[in-house]
Amino acid sequence: MKRSSLDHLDCSIARTLDVVGEWWTLLVIRDVTFGNRRFDSIQANLGVARNVLADRLATLVDHGVLERRRYQEHPDRFEYVLTDMGRDLYPVLLTLMAWGDKYLGPDGPPGIVHHTACGHDTVPTLVCTHCGEPLGNREIRVYPGPGWRRPGAAEAV
Amino acid sequence: MKRSSLDHLDCSIARTLDVVGEWWTLLVIRDVTFGNRRFDSIQANLGVARNVLADRLATLVDHGVLERRRYQEHPDRFEYVLTDMGRDLYPVLLTLMAWGDKYLGPDGPPGIVHHTACGHDTVPTLVCTHCGEPLGNREIRVYPGPGWRRPGAAEAV
Repeated sequence: MKRSSLDHLDCSIARTLDVVGEWWTLLVIRDVTFGNRRFDSIQANLGVARNVLADRLATLVDHGVLERRRYQEHPDRFEYVLTDMGRDLYPVLLTLMAWGDKYLGPDGPPGIVHHTACGHDTVPTLVCTHCGEPLGNREIRVYPGPGWRRPGAAEAV
Repeated sequence: MKRSSLDHLDCSIARTLDVVGEWWTLLVIRDVTFGNRRFDSIQANLGVARNVLADRLATLVDHGVLERRRYQEHPDRFEYVLTDMGRDLYPVLLTLMAWGDKYLGPDGPPGIVHHTACGHDTVPTLVCTHCGEPLGNREIRVYPGPGWRRPGAAEAV
């Protein structure tokens, strides 16, 4: 765990990366999100070392992102499920995916996102809650809010 | 560079993490996004080792996410600016930030996002391009698209 090394960066991006920014962590969350919930199948799918995966899963359970749940007794077997906190990471997964589709997918998107509530395929888009328009990449400014604790370092929001 | 170790994961999330998933990388992109563009000031702000930072910056330039631009001659001095590809990572930064605000910001958000186009503060929200409604965290399904190359591993989109 390298948590403390980001503690001086008083910013929600830094704090989030503290929890999920490790190389394999978001891929583990992706797997669990898409129904791949058991240690052996996650391990086989990602090709990550068992000790690394065990460490990542324990960290995510520790932070409340995943829950370890017994699905069988005699012998006990466990699977990992997302908590609400973990489920709420899907916008991060979808925005990572959209960027990869755009810049790293020469053969077209590997995955199509389907919105079950309206029944159509979709390209998730980030919009402004106030005006409802898509947020252009030059239309965003971030300024210090109530949780800001480092006056004088405003560029690092 | 660990690129090749994710090559077997045929998915835009994995490909994106291949480029930006390293621990410090998104923080570097965040700094440049918010105007902190010079090696020494990024290094001072993040507290990252100089050799690690130099390596990350070179990788990002290599991938086309950042551009190294001379801003002074005699002596030559350089700064890092986002390419369009790099600028398009702002939805990833904003969704990471929103999650941190919600779950890791006990004192309220460290940063407030302002939408300069409409002139109001905003909480960026991911919506469906088809129906325009916010994408609920249980309303998403992902299925194989044209760039999919691994039949039989549908859970790993």
